[in-house]
Amino acid sequence: MTSSRLETFSDGVIAIILTIMVLELKIPHGSDLSALRPLIPAYISYVLSFIYIGIYWNNHHHLFQAVQRVNGAILWANMHLLFWLSIVPFMTGWMGESHFAVYPVVCYGGALFMCAVAYYILARTLVKHHRENSVLVKAIGSDFKGKISLMIYLSAISLAFVNEWVAVALYVVVAIMWFVPDNRIENRLTRIEKE
Amino acid sequence: MTSSRLETFSDGVIAIILTIMVLELKIPHGSDLSALRPLIPAYISYVLSFIYIGIYWNNHHHLFQAVQRVNGAILWANMHLLFWLSIVPFMTGWMGESHFAVYPVVCYGGALFMCAVAYYILARTLVKHHRENSVLVKAIGSDFKGKISLMIYLSAISLAFVNEWVAVALYVVVAIMWFVPDNRIENRLTRIEKE
Amino acid sequence: MTSSRLETFSDGVIAIILTIMVLELKIPHGSDLSALRPLIPAYISYVLSFIYIGIYWNNHHHLFQAVQRVNGAILWANMHLLFWLSIVPFMTGWMGESHFAVYPVVCYGGALFMCAVAYYILARTLVKHHRENSVLVKAIGSDFKGKISLMIYLSAISLAFVNEWVAVALYVVVAIMWFVPDNRIENRLTRIEKE
Amino acid sequence: MTSSRLETFSDGVIAIILTIMVLELKIPHGSDLSALRPLIPAYISYVLSFIYIGIYWNNHHHLFQAVQRVNGAILWANMHLLFWLSIVPFMTGWMGESHFAVYPVVCYGGALFMCAVAYYILARTLVKHHRENSVLVKAIGSDFKGKISLMIYLSAISLAFVNEWVAVALYVVVAIMWFVPDNRIENRLTRIEKE
Repeated sequence: MTSSRLETFSDGVIAIILTIMVLELKIPHGSDLSALRPLIPAYISYVLSFIYIGIYWNNHHHLFQAVQRVNGAILWANMHLLFWLSIVPFMTGWMGESHFAVYPVVCYGGALFMCAVAYYILARTLVKHHRENSVLVKAIGSDFKGKISLMIYLSAISLAFVNEWVAVALYVVVAIMWFVPDNRIENRLTRIEKE
Repeated sequence: MTSSRLETFSDGVIAIILTIMVLELKIPHGSDLSALRPLIPAYISYVLSFIYIGIYWNNHHHLFQAVQRVNGAILWANMHLLFWLSIVPFMTGWMGESHFAVYPVVCYGGALFMCAVAYYILARTLVKHHRENSVLVKAIGSDFKGKISLMIYLSAISLAFVNEWVAVALYVVVAIMWFVPDNRIENRLTRIEKE
Repeated sequence: MTSSRLETFSDGVIAIILTIMVLELKIPHGSDLSALRPLIPAYISYVLSFIYIGIYWNNHHHLFQAVQRVNGAILWANMHLLFWLSIVPFMTGWMGESHFAVYPVVCYGGALFMCAVAYYILARTLVKHHRENSVLVKAIGSDFKGKISLMIYLSAISLAFVNEWVAVALYVVVAIMWFVPDNRIENRLTRIEKE
Repeated sequence: MTSSRLETFSDGVIAIILTIMVLELKIPHGSDLSALRPLIPAYISYVLSFIYIGIYWNNHHHLFQAVQRVNGAILWANMHLLFWLSIVPFMTGWMGESHFAVYPVVCYGGALFMCAVAYYILARTLVKHHRENSVLVKAIGSDFKGKISLMIYLSAISLAFVNEWVAVALYVVVAIMWFVPDNRIENRLTRIEKE
């Protein structure tokens, strides 16, 4: 089975996830600027999730670049990732609607955590079935950034009970970590890890 | 007419069906964990339908792998399948909203039954127009799993009037049957059938 | 400019139009079968529109099969068609919600009429820019079926003021006319025209 | 990284943005023609935004025609454009719902302005990474039309505080400027600029 239809399908699902989030920005009934004010938390969580979904699309794109063929295990590992990504719009909406209350912030982090776990499983499944494919194995590497993201998510979820904004700040940190071009940060972090 | 545009279009429709189901998970107004409790049935039915739609996409993918050209009959058999798949989000939402009441569970089973019938018709139409294509004919085979699924759906619909959860359990059984890699289960079942 | 990206984009838009119509089937709050009864008109109009959108996708597919390159005029003629197709879900919802009242039925017919006009303009624009392409010119032909559809829509819109169901029946007639394989009906009609 | 998957993904997102705007045309409860009257502003703003999104898709298509490979910077510049395009449905809905009140008209202009800025950044990023690609550099050119659009948007936003309809008229002017085939208008404008 070639990977191209899996990529097209994943692109479709990710494109829809990205776009339906904007439907949670409910059109206000007033026509003053003040009518937009209650939407600010929803807007902030939309921006954050848009960047996260963008990062996942970007990484998904990278992951499958060196892959030609997929099997059932890869297909379902991919479906599992799409499932958790599809939960993100719900959590984004809840976090925005609740104006960043503790539990929605915790659950949002939980969704991000599960997306990261699903991505890790997908990457491992790909490596398992393409051991001979050195380009892929190298591209995935030790996935240091993925592991540290999981740890930051767990810290954020715990710290949310102290202060919600610390958790949100940590979600932003992870987004920045993935957003900034790889070579710089990753090299530095790997060096720290080695020391 | 080449099959690639039909596959792309079907992928698009299936991707949207998969994703709009999450819109039925209405964002709660409260910000406690307890605000999520009434959503549990909706969440369970979402997970079940996500897996079903995933299975259909997977099988659709397999079906068209050996097909190069399609005609009007195949095109409309495919549209018919997409129609019944598009009914699944509605039934999923109703089953979730009603907390798995009898009639929604029955109708959900009815939608799954019609999807399976539509898939069977599509497979037969493909075989009819590609008799010479031995790869396709072999891939579809006697479609034992498809036939037994139809029987389980009918049993589930009848048993729902006794206990809704028996029906739901049977829907889960069919999903597992398709989810688990083919060769194992199918070989065993075919052997049982022969005895 | 190659036509493949235009086809992919149109496929995407048509797939979404097809699928968002199901969102107008609002999930009932009751859990009896009787809770589905008020949805029957919405369901009927959904089925009719699903078939119409399916026919347009099918015909669009045929139209672009013989086309390799597109220019600005073709691109906007295509956008114009997509615009009127995007109005169909709204009219479908209104016709269903109003239980086939006169004006919604008339407006639904108006939307179908505009889709047919837009399709005609697109076909003419393609012929104008691909005069040398005999496959395309032959495929479009005199477009007898297209012209008769326009006349039936106009009759339906007028007759809706006498009886809504006559109009709905005529919409069904046009759908059947396009649904049934071309050669039979079209040959017969062309023969009638010649006599 | 090839540009084809980026184009497919962008097509998907733009197709969804185009189509979900129609969801803001809420189905009226009445069944008279008068029930449609309150929807006229929403309809007008839908038409305007449909044309704008169509223009962006068209221009995006042109931009990537001469591009084969993309890097991280291009990918995120593209995401940035998609983000601002995704804000358009919200602003369209608000402008329509408020019957073209001052602030919604201003914010709509702000969204168009940001889309134009994001498009400009994307074009510059492409030129920066494909300096040797003379087809692309020539296709983007001095982007005179892009610059004048930004100026008209700013004027429209200011003039909206005098009269909302002047702003709306200016948005229509920009749309016409992009809609009319390039060579005519652009040549004329460039000549005016030179004088």
